[in-house]
Amino acid sequence: MSANEPTGLWLVGARGSVATTAVTGLLALRAGLTAPTGCVTEREPFTRLGLPSWENLVVGGHDVVCTPLDKRAEQLAESGLIPPRVLAATTTGLQAADTEIRDGYHPATHTGSQAEAAEHLTSDITSFRERHGLARVVVVNVSSTEPPVPHVPEHDSLSALETALADPTRTVLPPSSLNAYAALRAGCPFVDFTPSPGMRLPALHELAVAEGLPYAGSDGKTGETLLRTVLAPMFTARALRVRSWAGTNLLGGGDGANLADPTQAKGKLDSKARGLAALLGEGVTAPLHIDNVPDLGEQKTAWDHVSFEGFLGARMSLQLTWNGLDSALAAPLVLDLARLTAAAHAAGESGPLGALAFFFKDPIGSDEHRFAEQTTMLTEWAESLGERRA
Amino acid sequence: MSANEPTGLWLVGARGSVATTAVTGLLALRAGLTAPTGCVTEREPFTRLGLPSWENLVVGGHDVVCTPLDKRAEQLAESGLIPPRVLAATTTGLQAADTEIRDGYHPATHTGSQAEAAEHLTSDITSFRERHGLARVVVVNVSSTEPPVPHVPEHDSLSALETALADPTRTVLPPSSLNAYAALRAGCPFVDFTPSPGMRLPALHELAVAEGLPYAGSDGKTGETLLRTVLAPMFTARALRVRSWAGTNLLGGGDGANLADPTQAKGKLDSKARGLAALLGEGVTAPLHIDNVPDLGEQKTAWDHVSFEGFLGARMSLQLTWNGLDSALAAPLVLDLARLTAAAHAAGESGPLGALAFFFKDPIGSDEHRFAEQTTMLTEWAESLGERRA
Amino acid sequence: MSANEPTGLWLVGARGSVATTAVTGLLALRAGLTAPTGCVTEREPFTRLGLPSWENLVVGGHDVVCTPLDKRAEQLAESGLIPPRVLAATTTGLQAADTEIRDGYHPATHTGSQAEAAEHLTSDITSFRERHGLARVVVVNVSSTEPPVPHVPEHDSLSALETALADPTRTVLPPSSLNAYAALRAGCPFVDFTPSPGMRLPALHELAVAEGLPYAGSDGKTGETLLRTVLAPMFTARALRVRSWAGTNLLGGGDGANLADPTQAKGKLDSKARGLAALLGEGVTAPLHIDNVPDLGEQKTAWDHVSFEGFLGARMSLQLTWNGLDSALAAPLVLDLARLTAAAHAAGESGPLGALAFFFKDPIGSDEHRFAEQTTMLTEWAESLGERRA
Amino acid sequence: MSANEPTGLWLVGARGSVATTAVTGLLALRAGLTAPTGCVTEREPFTRLGLPSWENLVVGGHDVVCTPLDKRAEQLAESGLIPPRVLAATTTGLQAADTEIRDGYHPATHTGSQAEAAEHLTSDITSFRERHGLARVVVVNVSSTEPPVPHVPEHDSLSALETALADPTRTVLPPSSLNAYAALRAGCPFVDFTPSPGMRLPALHELAVAEGLPYAGSDGKTGETLLRTVLAPMFTARALRVRSWAGTNLLGGGDGANLADPTQAKGKLDSKARGLAALLGEGVTAPLHIDNVPDLGEQKTAWDHVSFEGFLGARMSLQLTWNGLDSALAAPLVLDLARLTAAAHAAGESGPLGALAFFFKDPIGSDEHRFAEQTTMLTEWAESLGERRA
Ligand SMILES: NC(=O)c1ccc[n+]([C@@H]2O[C@H](COP(=O)([O-])OP(=O)(O)OC[C@H]3O[C@@H](n4cnc5c(N)ncnc54)[C@H](O)[C@@H]3O)[C@@H](O)[C@H]2O)c1
Ligand SMILES: NC(=O)c1ccc[n+]([C@@H]2O[C@H](COP(=O)([O-])OP(=O)(O)OC[C@H]3O[C@@H](n4cnc5c(N)ncnc54)[C@H](O)[C@@H]3O)[C@@H](O)[C@H]2O)c1
Ligand SMILES: NC(=O)c1ccc[n+]([C@@H]2O[C@H](COP(=O)([O-])OP(=O)(O)OC[C@H]3O[C@@H](n4cnc5c(N)ncnc54)[C@H](O)[C@@H]3O)[C@@H](O)[C@H]2O)c1
Ligand SMILES: NC(=O)c1ccc[n+]([C@@H]2O[C@H](COP(=O)([O-])OP(=O)(O)OC[C@H]3O[C@@H](n4cnc5c(N)ncnc54)[C@H](O)[C@@H]3O)[C@@H](O)[C@H]2O)c1
Ligand code: NA
Ligand code: NA
Repeated sequence: MSANEPTGLWLVGARGSVATTAVTGLLALRAGLTAPTGCVTEREPFTRLGLPSWENLVVGGHDVVCTPLDKRAEQLAESGLIPPRVLAATTTGLQAADTEIRDGYHPATHTGSQAEAAEHLTSDITSFRERHGLARVVVVNVSSTEPPVPHVPEHDSLSALETALADPTRTVLPPSSLNAYAALRAGCPFVDFTPSPGMRLPALHELAVAEGLPYAGSDGKTGETLLRTVLAPMFTARALRVRSWAGTNLLGGGDGANLADPTQAKGKLDSKARGLAALLGEGVTAPLHIDNVPDLGEQKTAWDHVSFEGFLGARMSLQLTWNGLDSALAAPLVLDLARLTAAAHAAGESGPLGALAFFFKDPIGSDEHRFAEQTTMLTEWAESLGERRA
Repeated sequence: MSANEPTGLWLVGARGSVATTAVTGLLALRAGLTAPTGCVTEREPFTRLGLPSWENLVVGGHDVVCTPLDKRAEQLAESGLIPPRVLAATTTGLQAADTEIRDGYHPATHTGSQAEAAEHLTSDITSFRERHGLARVVVVNVSSTEPPVPHVPEHDSLSALETALADPTRTVLPPSSLNAYAALRAGCPFVDFTPSPGMRLPALHELAVAEGLPYAGSDGKTGETLLRTVLAPMFTARALRVRSWAGTNLLGGGDGANLADPTQAKGKLDSKARGLAALLGEGVTAPLHIDNVPDLGEQKTAWDHVSFEGFLGARMSLQLTWNGLDSALAAPLVLDLARLTAAAHAAGESGPLGALAFFFKDPIGSDEHRFAEQTTMLTEWAESLGERRA
Repeated sequence: MSANEPTGLWLVGARGSVATTAVTGLLALRAGLTAPTGCVTEREPFTRLGLPSWENLVVGGHDVVCTPLDKRAEQLAESGLIPPRVLAATTTGLQAADTEIRDGYHPATHTGSQAEAAEHLTSDITSFRERHGLARVVVVNVSSTEPPVPHVPEHDSLSALETALADPTRTVLPPSSLNAYAALRAGCPFVDFTPSPGMRLPALHELAVAEGLPYAGSDGKTGETLLRTVLAPMFTARALRVRSWAGTNLLGGGDGANLADPTQAKGKLDSKARGLAALLGEGVTAPLHIDNVPDLGEQKTAWDHVSFEGFLGARMSLQLTWNGLDSALAAPLVLDLARLTAAAHAAGESGPLGALAFFFKDPIGSDEHRFAEQTTMLTEWAESLGERRA
Repeated sequence: MSANEPTGLWLVGARGSVATTAVTGLLALRAGLTAPTGCVTEREPFTRLGLPSWENLVVGGHDVVCTPLDKRAEQLAESGLIPPRVLAATTTGLQAADTEIRDGYHPATHTGSQAEAAEHLTSDITSFRERHGLARVVVVNVSSTEPPVPHVPEHDSLSALETALADPTRTVLPPSSLNAYAALRAGCPFVDFTPSPGMRLPALHELAVAEGLPYAGSDGKTGETLLRTVLAPMFTARALRVRSWAGTNLLGGGDGANLADPTQAKGKLDSKARGLAALLGEGVTAPLHIDNVPDLGEQKTAWDHVSFEGFLGARMSLQLTWNGLDSALAAPLVLDLARLTAAAHAAGESGPLGALAFFFKDPIGSDEHRFAEQTTMLTEWAESLGERRA
């Protein structure tokens, strides 16, 4: 792989807030209109890996809504996420990018078997790859969070799964998993930036390994959880005993509206809770809330209150208020993940990429939640990739 | 060295808040009255190093005030730092420990040359070592913060320094440095838990190396700075651009009263500012205040406001409020430092112990401010010590 | 009424945290051990009203647990609510006060009709009044919060209610309302410091008016809501538009454990929400949480995030973190309410005392939630009471 | 006076951030582009007073910089203060308004006596009044904060002052006071929105009264101080004892740069401190900082930490973080003050308008700092104005 090899980034949820910010940013980076702030792959040692350049990253995707990318970007500009100057300079590019977006799969509108739906998704991706002469396409899921899926035996074996997919009376896979299946069938690595079920089914793992495809996830780590994975190890290293870690997240935007529904929020809350327990053990009281506060728009405000005990039982506390623009935090990571996963694919890696835990709330293929250790793992892995390719 | 080797801990500022908490805690640990929360050396891998046990740590020290340890502990109990139960159980032990405290050096009360003062201090320490049959004594400075000292040529060479010390008309060294000199002359390693000049003079480094003595410092990292060294690397690793990092510290207690004086506070503010610049570079606006708020007593409240920039120039912020009992955070580290420095001495290390940067705002012998890296350095160093001894 | 007239304070929930703090504080005030900080009736113009003095306030009550007052006070001292010095000086007084506590009514342990239970409660109160030769007894409910009660027709008419009470197969009243009924039947004014149904049934209002008895409530305003009723009017007066007001309450203690149950918390959350809507209208997004965080003990930490709009649509915010010891805030108000309600009774007032809205989250007899207006109402009412009596 | 009477608003500092926001907002209000959020005079009962309508408010002013209003508005739009939509619609109006701005007085550029300078300023104002056929002109100072002025005897008597003004070798008045003098000499009421000396000299009071002119000030109350005057009375009303009230203000913009200079900041810090002492008495520890943090642009972030004591000495705290766009808070008040002062002038009031204390950190003509009382005073005064005129 080299910086000159054209690479595809296929976004599931391509007209959402994260996707639109990522595409707008990519266009702005290409035009030299903005610095790559927030892009990890623009730092050492990643710059030495010959990752696809901004020019060589081509974007397409699926979505189930029709608002074109330039209109979505306009809305994001109004809410302060995209500078007016950048919007003006990228409108044409966004319109062009929008022509590469195809109708996504949604159970409410689909008729026929899920196998047919998957074939449709797959062929959208392969024709995108061929049309643009791409060396490879990385599929990244940035669509709306789905609720957890109940377990059925078909999730455990590829052949059983494919039988069920062929049955037009069944809807055995949630959309995120059907998209993952379609991506793998198109020969593409899959990255799940959401907490949805996605790749987390044994049958899909089986398929990835069989096809020699890498995958990564899940749930991009961009705010409160990022802070937690940075701060919790401090308490441990200093032998301080955390007693409670309470959190409240206020957010508007599409994600806020979606997560206002407790069923949808469950996956998100679960992935956050797993992380804290992995870092601090089970004895910590950890109430956690996600509230939809529409007037905050694209802004997310999170408050964390940590109560801890020190020498002679001293009671102390730490409070954090995080004020982030969620999509501005997520978008550069989506570009990073596309580049790094492309490199992993080029290097022949297959199965879960645990070294990408750095990017995720609930890392697949790794139990490491401590941010400093994740940083080291990522760096060492990237360097080894570079060496293997050299 | 083994856990059974009796080791001295000589505290400069032995009747202060940090010292009193450390001694009370040591007595409570010996009596099994409290868990070693906040003691880093009670965690893996340090527990495998054969560090001096609580029973084998004998305490003495210098101070310039007369309030005995048990009275000081009573005051600390009233302000919530020491549980009543622990106070009751340790009063006798504190009275005994107080008999090992000698009059410290203070320029305002001393007559004669500083050389004479140093000899006096030295002999207090050596007679303590002999009286208790100690394998070694670690001297730890926890006395009031001093202002920075202006540079004079005598600070650069041991022989020039000793000539000046002998001159009864001069006061060439600030108390912290005179205490360091006296400790080294007594053959003892010296740890500076304060931001005072202490060991930071070339002539004293010369002496330490000549005598084959290790030393460490400076300025215990227990609150706001601890958080900064944990959080700043996160912004760097994520390629986010920190624009400003403002801080306000409210504190009462002896330290609050002392730091209310801008001259005294200068050393503290300087050591904090150096740390932030080392972590994030020079372009960050970083106003910093220390306010004396007597009603807060032993509690320290610090507020930090971090403003940072992300993708497409997005403006975001993080706020922190730290609510700590300063002496409860400092005291176990004083015990840790005594143990680890004793081990370094036993292993024959000399000069600055950069591997102890983990404990300090302004580490001597290391430019590493990132907490995770400091943790790794400390752990690896401790393991190598163990191996060398084994 | 005069300061020399002995007055009873009968506490429902007499061994709870609020009650124990109130009784301990009363004993400490009598002994001159503490200043009356937090006691509104010790300020002008209330000091001129001839309210019952601390010496003339006699305490008794009902509870359903057996831990005696001095043991409960010991626990509160451990959690930092009662100073050790005060505990030591009041232990004997607390033991004496505990002899005036009788077994309360609980549906789980009671057999027989609720009418019988009420008679029992009434006779406990009347015999207390006679035993101590009291001019009057004010009954204050500080027992555990109950869930809202479903409406039944018997709640609307006294005669229908009394028929149902006599039926041993029914449990028509929740405990708080049965206690209110019993208090009124004993000829005593009733104050509800909790959000429980209490006096909020038309049949009980009918009884109070028939008996010429005043009553007040409900839900003591001591923390987050106090701040809201102070701050919301500022936004209105300045023509700023509040868009959202999110809140999270972390609390331990008995109240924390009880409110962890969403059913029990409902009353509390409802009374808070009603207040905000009364202050700012209906269009404000206002998610609100109560979390049980046992390690916080008696401490309550509340975080509020207010998002508001100014000139030209400017988006701004205010954050609050309140760190209170709930019972220390509540206890002096319980004493204030006892004194003021006694004065109202002496002055011949009957029905709801809307002028006491100052003290309550969900004032009965008043729609005024603005704190400044409540302060004026209280002061003017108190002055008029004084004049009527003079 | 009636809503149809054309009224002038003459801004000293007419191209600053507050002034530009006020003028842009006025244009937007006239065009019906924005709601009058933040405008107190658009609420009851002020709407019934026949105050000058937006159409009848004509703007001019002095400044010492040349950046025209539309360019300044462009900068403010970039920093998020003015919506792009509003900027586009008001550019022409801003250009027109800019033609009414004249060169202000600055000691560094002026030659000749201050009397000559004052005549120049006066004639700018009177010719503006005549040119537009205005019933009256209110002069509002929104220029950069000046340091406190040392007292000289000439400040105490009008005749002595005028002798000194005529002396070309002296600079007896700071610019704010010279502007006030010139305004009064033009027969105009003067409002000081800044903490500068302005009208606070006995000689100028003498002149105002002699000319029958009202005046008001000083230092617009828009953020931290607003909160303090709302919250401090709560502690008093509840008999809670405030022990310390610490504050830190982070701000960028022109005001931030100016206040970074401790000499300039002194007036601001003094006016804030006076307010707190007036509210809570002298015994409160109250450290206060203003930090220039350029990257915050027009945003102001203030953190307040209040420590207070309750029943039985309980130690509690309240923290506030205020995130305001300073000029968006100030601008509508400037319009309100122009309207209300015009009404006072029309009603024949002269001397300090204490009833406007509601708007100021350091009210002239009133000792009332409590916000609720100020609100009542303002409302009652406005109603009495209305009655007098009716
Ligand atoms: N910081 C962050 O923003 C962050 C962090 C971690 C995870 N995430 C996750 O990223 C996802 C996207 O967030 P967002 O803020 O962009 O949300 P959004 O609501 O703005 O966008 C989601 C998009 O997905 C589309 N979509 C929904 N169902 C689809 C389907 N079946 N097929 C194709 N497209 C579909 C929607 O139409 C919409 O355009 C969410 O799941 C969120 O939880 C975001
Ligand atoms: N978390 C922390 O508490 C923390 C963290 C970093 C550094 N420190 C530093 O530790 C030191 C002690 O803090 P503290 O809170 O115990 O202060 P303190 O004021 O309670 O105690 C200082 C003691 O030093 C004594 N002293 C002063 N001059 C002396 C001299 N010349 N010789 C001997 N004794 C002398 C004083 O009499 C006093 O008993 C301070 O310098 C502080 O800055 C503390
Ligand atoms: N700031 C405050 O503390 C505050 C403010 C507003 C309202 N309140 C309300 O005051 C009440 C008391 O709070 P607390 O912190 O003392 O709680 P707590 O749990 O410590 O005490 C409640 C007491 O009521 C007793 N009780 C329960 N059911 C009873 C019954 N049927 N009859 C008699 N006694 C009964 C319990 O045994 C317990 O002793 C709660 O309802 C709380 O919501 C408190
Ligand atoms: N919320 C608020 O914004 C607020 C609140 C209270 C007080 N104030 C005060 O309002 C004033 C204006 O604030 P700003 O943010 O607009 O500041 P700014 O720096 O943006 O504007 C000040 C303007 O005054 C002009 N000026 C300076 N000296 C002058 C002179 N001698 N004559 C005429 N013009 C002169 C400057 O050129 C500049 O255009 C400041 O004094 C500030 O302290 C503002
Ligand atoms: Na500290
Ligand atoms: Na302000």
